[in-house]
Amino acid sequence: MKTLISRALCFENNQLRVLDQRQLPHQETWMICQTIEDMVYAIQTLAVRGAPLIGVAASLALAQFSAKNPSKTAIEAAAQQLVLARPTAINLKCCINQQLAEYHKTEDPQVLVATAEQLFEEDSAFSESIANYGANLIQDNESILTHCNTGRLVTTGMGTALGAIFRAHEQGKNIHVYVNETRPLLQGARLTAWELVQAGIPHTLCCDNMVGTLMQQGKIQRIITGADCIAANGDTANKIGTYTLAALASLHHIPFHIAAPKTTLAQDIPDGSCIPIEERSAEEVRGFQDIQWACAQSAVYNPAFDVTPHRWITSFILDNGIFTPQEVT
Amino acid sequence: MKTLISRALCFENNQLRVLDQRQLPHQETWMICQTIEDMVYAIQTLAVRGAPLIGVAASLALAQFSAKNPSKTAIEAAAQQLVLARPTAINLKCCINQQLAEYHKTEDPQVLVATAEQLFEEDSAFSESIANYGANLIQDNESILTHCNTGRLVTTGMGTALGAIFRAHEQGKNIHVYVNETRPLLQGARLTAWELVQAGIPHTLCCDNMVGTLMQQGKIQRIITGADCIAANGDTANKIGTYTLAALASLHHIPFHIAAPKTTLAQDIPDGSCIPIEERSAEEVRGFQDIQWACAQSAVYNPAFDVTPHRWITSFILDNGIFTPQEVT
Repeated sequence: MKTLISRALCFENNQLRVLDQRQLPHQETWMICQTIEDMVYAIQTLAVRGAPLIGVAASLALAQFSAKNPSKTAIEAAAQQLVLARPTAINLKCCINQQLAEYHKTEDPQVLVATAEQLFEEDSAFSESIANYGANLIQDNESILTHCNTGRLVTTGMGTALGAIFRAHEQGKNIHVYVNETRPLLQGARLTAWELVQAGIPHTLCCDNMVGTLMQQGKIQRIITGADCIAANGDTANKIGTYTLAALASLHHIPFHIAAPKTTLAQDIPDGSCIPIEERSAEEVRGFQDIQWACAQSAVYNPAFDVTPHRWITSFILDNGIFTPQEVT
Repeated sequence: MKTLISRALCFENNQLRVLDQRQLPHQETWMICQTIEDMVYAIQTLAVRGAPLIGVAASLALAQFSAKNPSKTAIEAAAQQLVLARPTAINLKCCINQQLAEYHKTEDPQVLVATAEQLFEEDSAFSESIANYGANLIQDNESILTHCNTGRLVTTGMGTALGAIFRAHEQGKNIHVYVNETRPLLQGARLTAWELVQAGIPHTLCCDNMVGTLMQQGKIQRIITGADCIAANGDTANKIGTYTLAALASLHHIPFHIAAPKTTLAQDIPDGSCIPIEERSAEEVRGFQDIQWACAQSAVYNPAFDVTPHRWITSFILDNGIFTPQEVT
């Protein structure tokens, strides 16, 4: 396989590594993924995360696996294991299925490698296009709110929603970013704020429950988030909290955009009610990592994603252009 | 002074003590408050918290102070120090002003003691009435969402919003409580969930950004929160996140109630824009207590309260009855 290097994913010297995002921003530790189980573990624990990146990372793992295990049965079983690692992000299924479809034409394992390389490079190109289209929407002197983390850590390029923000800043636009901390796993506080510090973009971190007040005060001109799955009617699954944001945006007449590669569109899922939503462990809500601040006796609600109805989405920023919910379907 | 004992405040054997709520639910530690400075520190660090309780606690501190410092100048300076400890909760100012007004009639420091005792006992009676009125609103088989903490820890009785929930449960109603964790200081996760565990009331803890989704799924039939200040037109300051909740409730047609003693009404504050809002430290948002998960370079937005417009409030549950925003003014 070629040497492939992005901010959070790397194939080099015959070794597949992922940046352990659980330890950011305090430590940059890379995890070596030698087996399918290693990659499934990295995906399930969110060491590697973000809809586009987990698709590419899983494809690289399958390519690496096939070099040692070239039998069709083994390859198909490994592919299945990877697809089941997380249920909501469509990109995981999409990347692995694309890889398998190519492989099934010739049953040459080398095709899995070539397809993984292609997926890695395409993902970076998708980011570039999304960033350009998204940056065109962002006006000078705007404050943009974003949720979760959608930058260089979740694609092989500059990102989706955050990519558009990076590009607008590169264009010299005077922008300010409000960063939702994104409980329970704090991807906004730990990752997005850190990426914005590194990029030198002015920003303000806030707790998720403060966004209504920011809108009331007229401090937010635009909201851009990523997506894990876009159903055929435009309903969109994204990190938990996105529905709340979109509802508030609708009430306050603030444009609300979803930025994602077009591969996030799932034409076989008719609407949001059919998107499978992952429920995660209670400990994530009762505390953060090693610290548990709530009683273990309390029951917990912890869906990793929610579904925003298409009527609240102003537009989709895809790698092939900007589309309304009606146009995207 | 009489012996006065509540769940989080105690005057006994000539000693004023407050339960250190920062350490809950893991440790029950009581702090001795010997001086005005001790009480100001306890209030500012949220060791003692909740609009009704800080009013009563400050009054007890002033009464205790006057026994050793009976001069009018010293008493008035101490009163001023207490009033300035936190700016938003009106009850603090209200209790101290009531105490001073009584004192100024005779300038007998003993009046400060008698008034503090009366405020302690009245607060418990207010809770009882609020709980009864609020419980009457709650129907069998309802799920009620609440924010922050409004139970036995914030009044000398059973609480305000949570008091109504306790009473509905005592009445044998089949209820379920959704508890917003209430970032940044997690009063919901640490305190409300713990009080509900102790009361044996079925409940589910969720992150603040999940509430929209709970409403979308039809899981919330009613929302009840407390209040720190109710302006003359019914606009209400309460813990940050309340505005977001009320906005979502309005969009989803869910009844939204404010439960508070009538002393929380500030007739001299015409509307919400005139309520002073306390901004707290950046560290509270960048992490929790000793753990800091965000970069220190990120700016932070951290108002302790927000203001809910009266049009989104279905009714006020006060100790003297239930009122619409129009009636409350």
